[in-house]
Amino acid sequence: MVGEIGVGMIGHAFMGAVHSQAWRSVHRFFPVALTPRLAVLCGRDAARTRDAAARLGWAAVETDWRAAVAREDVQLVDICTPGDTHAEIALAALAAGKHVLCEKPLANSVAEAEAMAAAAEAAAAKGVRSMVAFNYRRVPALGLARRLVAEGRLGDIRHVRAVYLQDWLSDETAPMTWRLRKDKAGSGSLGDLGAHIVDAAQWVTGQNVSGVSAISETFVRNRPSDEGSGEVTVDDAALFLARFSGGAIGSFEATRYALGRKNAMRLEINGSRGSIAFDFESMNELRFFDGDDAGAEAGFRRILVTEPEHPYVGAWWPPGHLLGYEHTFTHEVSDLLEAIATGSDPAPGFAEGLQVQRVLAAVEDSAAAGSVWTPVGTAGPSGNGRAEMTGAAVS
Amino acid sequence: MVGEIGVGMIGHAFMGAVHSQAWRSVHRFFPVALTPRLAVLCGRDAARTRDAAARLGWAAVETDWRAAVAREDVQLVDICTPGDTHAEIALAALAAGKHVLCEKPLANSVAEAEAMAAAAEAAAAKGVRSMVAFNYRRVPALGLARRLVAEGRLGDIRHVRAVYLQDWLSDETAPMTWRLRKDKAGSGSLGDLGAHIVDAAQWVTGQNVSGVSAISETFVRNRPSDEGSGEVTVDDAALFLARFSGGAIGSFEATRYALGRKNAMRLEINGSRGSIAFDFESMNELRFFDGDDAGAEAGFRRILVTEPEHPYVGAWWPPGHLLGYEHTFTHEVSDLLEAIATGSDPAPGFAEGLQVQRVLAAVEDSAAAGSVWTPVGTAGPSGNGRAEMTGAAVS
Amino acid sequence: MVGEIGVGMIGHAFMGAVHSQAWRSVHRFFPVALTPRLAVLCGRDAARTRDAAARLGWAAVETDWRAAVAREDVQLVDICTPGDTHAEIALAALAAGKHVLCEKPLANSVAEAEAMAAAAEAAAAKGVRSMVAFNYRRVPALGLARRLVAEGRLGDIRHVRAVYLQDWLSDETAPMTWRLRKDKAGSGSLGDLGAHIVDAAQWVTGQNVSGVSAISETFVRNRPSDEGSGEVTVDDAALFLARFSGGAIGSFEATRYALGRKNAMRLEINGSRGSIAFDFESMNELRFFDGDDAGAEAGFRRILVTEPEHPYVGAWWPPGHLLGYEHTFTHEVSDLLEAIATGSDPAPGFAEGLQVQRVLAAVEDSAAAGSVWTPVGTAGPSGNGRAEMTGAAVS
Amino acid sequence: MVGEIGVGMIGHAFMGAVHSQAWRSVHRFFPVALTPRLAVLCGRDAARTRDAAARLGWAAVETDWRAAVAREDVQLVDICTPGDTHAEIALAALAAGKHVLCEKPLANSVAEAEAMAAAAEAAAAKGVRSMVAFNYRRVPALGLARRLVAEGRLGDIRHVRAVYLQDWLSDETAPMTWRLRKDKAGSGSLGDLGAHIVDAAQWVTGQNVSGVSAISETFVRNRPSDEGSGEVTVDDAALFLARFSGGAIGSFEATRYALGRKNAMRLEINGSRGSIAFDFESMNELRFFDGDDAGAEAGFRRILVTEPEHPYVGAWWPPGHLLGYEHTFTHEVSDLLEAIATGSDPAPGFAEGLQVQRVLAAVEDSAAAGSVWTPVGTAGPSGNGRAEMTGAAVS
Repeated sequence: MVGEIGVGMIGHAFMGAVHSQAWRSVHRFFPVALTPRLAVLCGRDAARTRDAAARLGWAAVETDWRAAVAREDVQLVDICTPGDTHAEIALAALAAGKHVLCEKPLANSVAEAEAMAAAAEAAAAKGVRSMVAFNYRRVPALGLARRLVAEGRLGDIRHVRAVYLQDWLSDETAPMTWRLRKDKAGSGSLGDLGAHIVDAAQWVTGQNVSGVSAISETFVRNRPSDEGSGEVTVDDAALFLARFSGGAIGSFEATRYALGRKNAMRLEINGSRGSIAFDFESMNELRFFDGDDAGAEAGFRRILVTEPEHPYVGAWWPPGHLLGYEHTFTHEVSDLLEAIATGSDPAPGFAEGLQVQRVLAAVEDSAAAGSVWTPVGTAGPSGNGRAEMTGAAVS
Repeated sequence: MVGEIGVGMIGHAFMGAVHSQAWRSVHRFFPVALTPRLAVLCGRDAARTRDAAARLGWAAVETDWRAAVAREDVQLVDICTPGDTHAEIALAALAAGKHVLCEKPLANSVAEAEAMAAAAEAAAAKGVRSMVAFNYRRVPALGLARRLVAEGRLGDIRHVRAVYLQDWLSDETAPMTWRLRKDKAGSGSLGDLGAHIVDAAQWVTGQNVSGVSAISETFVRNRPSDEGSGEVTVDDAALFLARFSGGAIGSFEATRYALGRKNAMRLEINGSRGSIAFDFESMNELRFFDGDDAGAEAGFRRILVTEPEHPYVGAWWPPGHLLGYEHTFTHEVSDLLEAIATGSDPAPGFAEGLQVQRVLAAVEDSAAAGSVWTPVGTAGPSGNGRAEMTGAAVS
Repeated sequence: MVGEIGVGMIGHAFMGAVHSQAWRSVHRFFPVALTPRLAVLCGRDAARTRDAAARLGWAAVETDWRAAVAREDVQLVDICTPGDTHAEIALAALAAGKHVLCEKPLANSVAEAEAMAAAAEAAAAKGVRSMVAFNYRRVPALGLARRLVAEGRLGDIRHVRAVYLQDWLSDETAPMTWRLRKDKAGSGSLGDLGAHIVDAAQWVTGQNVSGVSAISETFVRNRPSDEGSGEVTVDDAALFLARFSGGAIGSFEATRYALGRKNAMRLEINGSRGSIAFDFESMNELRFFDGDDAGAEAGFRRILVTEPEHPYVGAWWPPGHLLGYEHTFTHEVSDLLEAIATGSDPAPGFAEGLQVQRVLAAVEDSAAAGSVWTPVGTAGPSGNGRAEMTGAAVS
Repeated sequence: MVGEIGVGMIGHAFMGAVHSQAWRSVHRFFPVALTPRLAVLCGRDAARTRDAAARLGWAAVETDWRAAVAREDVQLVDICTPGDTHAEIALAALAAGKHVLCEKPLANSVAEAEAMAAAAEAAAAKGVRSMVAFNYRRVPALGLARRLVAEGRLGDIRHVRAVYLQDWLSDETAPMTWRLRKDKAGSGSLGDLGAHIVDAAQWVTGQNVSGVSAISETFVRNRPSDEGSGEVTVDDAALFLARFSGGAIGSFEATRYALGRKNAMRLEINGSRGSIAFDFESMNELRFFDGDDAGAEAGFRRILVTEPEHPYVGAWWPPGHLLGYEHTFTHEVSDLLEAIATGSDPAPGFAEGLQVQRVLAAVEDSAAAGSVWTPVGTAGPSGNGRAEMTGAAVS
């Protein structure tokens, strides 16, 4: 499959802007067989959407996402809206035979995510592809981390430490937003930040989270609001302990109250043969401890992940010429376009998004039930992953 | 009270060596009213104890700790033995009217620790002092952290992240030691490393841990042993979530399997107005984020904690001339000698040691009970801190 | 002035690729009045140039730079060729009334640079703009550094430490390239890397280099070559001491043999009231020591330069979402387009490029003359900056 | 040779205090055949010297250094006075057959240093040992650096970057001290700080500095003074470029005006096969880049130099339990005592101290002569290392 592929993007806020740059740039750097055409941008407000389309480079606008999805010049639907609309749009797009890229978290509930995963599986049988936008998989340093684990350089994984720390709610007078409303966002830091570190930890280690014990907290329960209620109905912070399918144990924390930390998505992994450490605030670096090094010469290496041998890097600049946040999205759409062109399933697919959703649900369940150990569900169509939870206990 | 004070030290392994350097050096740097006299060293093997005494500078030796405690030239007993003998020795010393410095953790059980705390309280009424050797309180950088919190520079404390990472068990072929036997050590990484971070987190924040949810793991259950069983009967790693008395939430991890981390005792605290971060592997540094700094100029400051205004530092070298691990013990005995001389209670006393012990017990209880939320006991004489645990649940 | 502006770019190697991304993206993020149209790409080889144009997004191709410059659809000429052709192309473009963006170093000799500066001055009188592509001025962290200096936050500048370290020649078997031929590149590490740090140090401090003492070295004098001579005729490394017009003293080093350093363009400045430190390998960070902070709380702050208040950052992503190397070029062309639109002179202009060239010439002169102190020339049309050098001596 | 050795120390300020701790502690950690006896402390003021002796642990006091040197109970003279008295005391001590440890810089002039080196050579023939107190050679991390170079792990050394940055003069109102008087201190930052980095760079690389080009500066020429003149007669900062005997090139900087840097004695070395980087403000760490590592996994390793295999470390604590500034002196006297006991010459001897002195003299000469390239003297008894300077030119 070669030629152009028409993209329709729903939503044009932060995610819309960064996705647009990826769609505009990907074929300038990666040898994709399919060149994206920025066909239509969809937003609720006509004027603002027209402005955004002009600025971001989209050829047309729609104000009804159903119309956008239905357009003949759209073969791929890119969902950049809040989580409460993901399921509806994705299901419609897949039903219409359109490929789908959906922002994370996949949905606001396990039930929605299950429906989406089922629809994606059915669509895949017809050659329609779908992908969840866990862009941190496309950070070259994390790709290198995964490669080292896969090659056995870390040995057996024992410890995982994953935190995602921001501080934009640290100020109690920061205003209300849709991200603090459960009906819109599904959850708070858990879905927004926690989803990223769950996916990243699972992807890098190659192990799934199998059970959790959790607490969560809402530090500020009312915030100034111009429109409607200022009641915060989501978690401000969520912390959980976890066991992984391969025997590792770990801890996770998501918060927007870590004053001074702007985007500290950190991942530390210790294995029997090596260790790695990563912090997105230094996203071009991976720390690697090679247990095979002679004792007197061993130490965490600060690998500047800008070498041509590193994932995705060969497409860009010489060593030491850093990449930024937006490039992870360029990598993401490159992989998606490649999958569509070659007729293979991109990763992470909706099934993987569902698995993350089940972890998030187990976290919420455990936090609501006195932190009791809560297995992560693996149920079929009827289950929401919560049925098997009763009576669980570990270690 | 001025003049000399005779010290009798029980045990002469790692802790004995570092305590000896503190006793030999303290009056060379700090204006203590009482000068320590290294009166007697006690160990079970006569020949090895004599060698150690000669090397470490002790005037006499004993092989029976009761004899050492009873000596007329001993006014202060320094307990550097494994945890299973702490209670017995401390109780005898206090009964004999000797001041006591006891290595951490205070005891191997809450019951023992309660008895010790009660004895210490009774002894204090008679002017006999006792102290637990939580030496990390004497790291200047952590002293500065506590000062910043106490001055309100961090505002309300919201997050605590405390880990203590070592890697000396990472190698599965590392041999059996008493530290891996429950009867000797009480617990594994939890008592050895976890006790330090619990005490440090509580001391720096000024808040107590009020409840926990925990998991623990033993990665390697049998190790090579020359003498007796190689069965590991303690935890290799312990992780727990916690709530603090002042509203903060946090996570803790103690492990000896974090390959590449040699002594990474780390503490991160985020408040509403400021944040700090510390890592013992860079023990002369404190990271401090001052939320009052203008936004465009704010950032974590790397404070080199070697200025004369910093805790303990004025006694030592000019700025930038680093201190090491051993100096924390010199500070510790300086504070103890000062308390004895002035007739005040040193900190941390045995009651604080008991409180830490109760946290450790709650962690073990929670880990054994499916991670269920477990309040930290505050019981009187009959309770071991576990009675109130039933029915607990939180947020 | 609003609307489109046609760009003709000469050269399509590394610099051509990164400039193209800037031309394609600038109006998506910055509110430029002039939207760049990628009119024509010029290269010597027709087939390769056509390929590059398709990949990089240029509408047409030329193989003769004179034709490209002359095209009616070109109003701005972007010179991305090796240094030996800068003067010729720039002079022709300015003569044709085309705006010019010229890669650094401005030229291969002071004489060329003087001619270019004179032409630029004449052209400016007619509304034709010219700019040297010292892109490091557009790193937000260095912009913040300059702002802090300008606001007096560093007080009187005393020390400058500037190095630019790469390692791609460290391997003695790395092949010959045009960058190692004096006739093509003018100089080696000095012009390639040294030019950047001279410009950056001068720009951030607001002081010019007034004199130097230098040494240079060529470590590997012959390299494998497929085409012609493998004789290296430029410096591999150049080091110099410097005095600045405002009283500061400093040291500079440029090398491609610093094994392990990939793009370590570092700048440290100490003033009477504050200090800064920067390393391009962590380009989103600025270290700032505020001498006004209380002594016990002072320390170098790691400012993550990703706040909306920071230079250029407001156009991009939320705090903590890093920018990369390429963004400095987007900023650069944004500033150039703004200057053209508003009829003002962009900075750095050719006169500033000439001043840097004179520093480089003084460095070469000093290195050739036993490191003798060598003032930086400020001569008029006839001088090459070398006339005043004799008899100089300082401090 | 076993038993005790009586030490007489001249001077009891900063250096006296740290040397005392070393003399008191060395035999507690190192298996020295000779145990130091702190026989006599010498200072000009009787009362203050008695106080210092009591505090620091010296058995007796003298107020006349000649008397101290002459005492029968003194076999080793430790010179901790300002530089203007080093030669006189050392010559007298050697003449009296006493071993000598002399603080750095060895002397205030090349002539003095030559006399001292000659006397030391003559004394050595009679079994009398002498050593210069370049304590940074005893930093384990620098010892490891030297070992890596010696083993060829860095290959051919190409670049040296050495700075020693402090900031205690940064404040213009800081008072006058003897360290700012040429008659007392010989030079300013050059002798105080520059001597250390010259010695360290030479020792680690195994190459001598063969020539220099220098500038120096005095930023503040008058300072508040209670006693006599406040005129600063030494350099505040000295910078120089250097060539080494083995082909490396490098830069050096010594200053006390680097605001925010407390004791940043940094050394970076790049070779054809590896690189190292060190900063005394993190003295327990060495950064090592192993060029033999696979490209995608290479990076500067942060080696925590606290392993038993590291120089001197086996005598101390477990891995990750840091050493401090004072320990370098304990290592130093251990080495000296070992040399005396075994009848070998300790390093660095006075001849090495003289070589450093000649580098410092060349720096001063070059700075006074318009930075002209100045070879480092290697002359015999009559030369001060300045004779061969004329006509030099390099590169």
